Amino acid sequence: MELSLNTATVRKQWSLAQIIDGCARHGIQGISPWRDQVAAIGLKKASSSIRANGLAVTGLCRGGFFTAKDWRDDNLRAIEEAHELGARCLVLVVGGLPPGSKDLVSARNKVYEGIAAILPEARKAGVPLAIEPLHPMQAAERACINTLEQALDLCDFFKDGIGVAVDVYHVWWDPKLQSQVQRAGRRILGYHICDWLVPTRDLLNDRGMMGDGVIDLASIQSSIKQAGYTGFQEVEIFSEAWWKRDPDEVLEICKARSAG
Amino acid sequence: MELSLNTATVRKQWSLAQIIDGCARHGIQGISPWRDQVAAIGLKKASSSIRANGLAVTGLCRGGFFTAKDWRDDNLRAIEEAHELGARCLVLVVGGLPPGSKDLVSARNKVYEGIAAILPEARKAGVPLAIEPLHPMQAAERACINTLEQALDLCDFFKDGIGVAVDVYHVWWDPKLQSQVQRAGRRILGYHICDWLVPTRDLLNDRGMMGDGVIDLASIQSSIKQAGYTGFQEVEIFSEAWWKRDPDEVLEICKARSAG
Repeated sequence: MELSLNTATVRKQWSLAQIIDGCARHGIQGISPWRDQVAAIGLKKASSSIRANGLAVTGLCRGGFFTAKDWRDDNLRAIEEAHELGARCLVLVVGGLPPGSKDLVSARNKVYEGIAAILPEARKAGVPLAIEPLHPMQAAERACINTLEQALDLCDFFKDGIGVAVDVYHVWWDPKLQSQVQRAGRRILGYHICDWLVPTRDLLNDRGMMGDGVIDLASIQSSIKQAGYTGFQEVEIFSEAWWKRDPDEVLEICKARSAG
Repeated sequence: MELSLNTATVRKQWSLAQIIDGCARHGIQGISPWRDQVAAIGLKKASSSIRANGLAVTGLCRGGFFTAKDWRDDNLRAIEEAHELGARCLVLVVGGLPPGSKDLVSARNKVYEGIAAILPEARKAGVPLAIEPLHPMQAAERACINTLEQALDLCDFFKDGIGVAVDVYHVWWDPKLQSQVQRAGRRILGYHICDWLVPTRDLLNDRGMMGDGVIDLASIQSSIKQAGYTGFQEVEIFSEAWWKRDPDEVLEICKARSAG
């Protein structure tokens, strides 16, 4: 599998311009930028710089957050940006509970409504939407879609122009992982890697480098390939520890640890 | 629902003898002790003191950890202790990955083997085993059974003498919670309450008091009752913050927050 770098991995050390340059220097062939980083250097400049360096845009992070107030406009802008960047998908982190709410059922219904509202625009723009189920420990704050099964139920409902992003950090524990990856098949639009550390000291920013934790990456990658995925593996590590390291060294280690 | 106190809730402030006394003083009618606390005052003394105070033993914590070396003997001892205490169930925290392993499938198979080995003794002793699915964020370190669906598949396999402990902290996020609670029906052997704080600052010891977080306790309790559960609601709060509070105050707040 070819390698892509999710720009969150070195976001505290480098600007997007530096990350694009870093990928090119280290022979990493894909990139998945975050919208705030794109905005910081400008959409046109980001797009032309990524193209000039021959990088595939394996995803744009992120749309979603359908429980936020300006969700509609924000998602339509995200679709335009993904189109401009030639992104292979727009990753959807769907949002958790609205402030003051305990109603997960209602939050989940909002996700259906939100996707229904933006999917026609995404199809017109040729930008596939990739629902990313997030770990259950992030259900309240970031995403109320928490299993691959749940995400695929959404895909079944909406059919064309929508799929899933499989991030090992979020799904590695799932007893149904293998069967749902098979069910997903060609609807897998992104495959994100990192590792689960033991112990994990923070719910958001203590992800591990591949090989430093307990996720059976070889087995998951094998399932993903068997399901028909032919895209990139995208390293996405939110980690206070790795954000303190020399970014060139981080990229070298990402390459070394993602062989296969 | 009548109230029970899981002794972990005030374990840093009080010995088991003090907790038994506290429950009696505060009119809490059930208790669910941990084995280390029982051992600290002696099984006979714990048992006679609990009986003398008229407390129901809603569970004994805990058996399980089938990936540990001495799992068989330890579980057989736990069954004897649960029998001696007249516990309504022995709670099973099944164990995570063995040291150095990344193989969840194999760990899960060990759970089947472990339960198969101890269930005949549990049945003879009249001690129902309650599988407690733990939050996916504890899959590596404490329990590789992470959803109610998974736990009930085990129950279906083993049939008599086994059920589940439903702890809201572990299952509140589950999109299948309601349907699996219905499926469980009379096999619900324990119902544990607390709350999920936003933000949560620690994966183990940052649970909230009921009402301080985002779990829809009223809705879950309603499902549990509809499923036919007639037992106690058991407060179980692992929390550095609550372990610093005056334990009499903690018990009063538990009572006030668990009405219904």
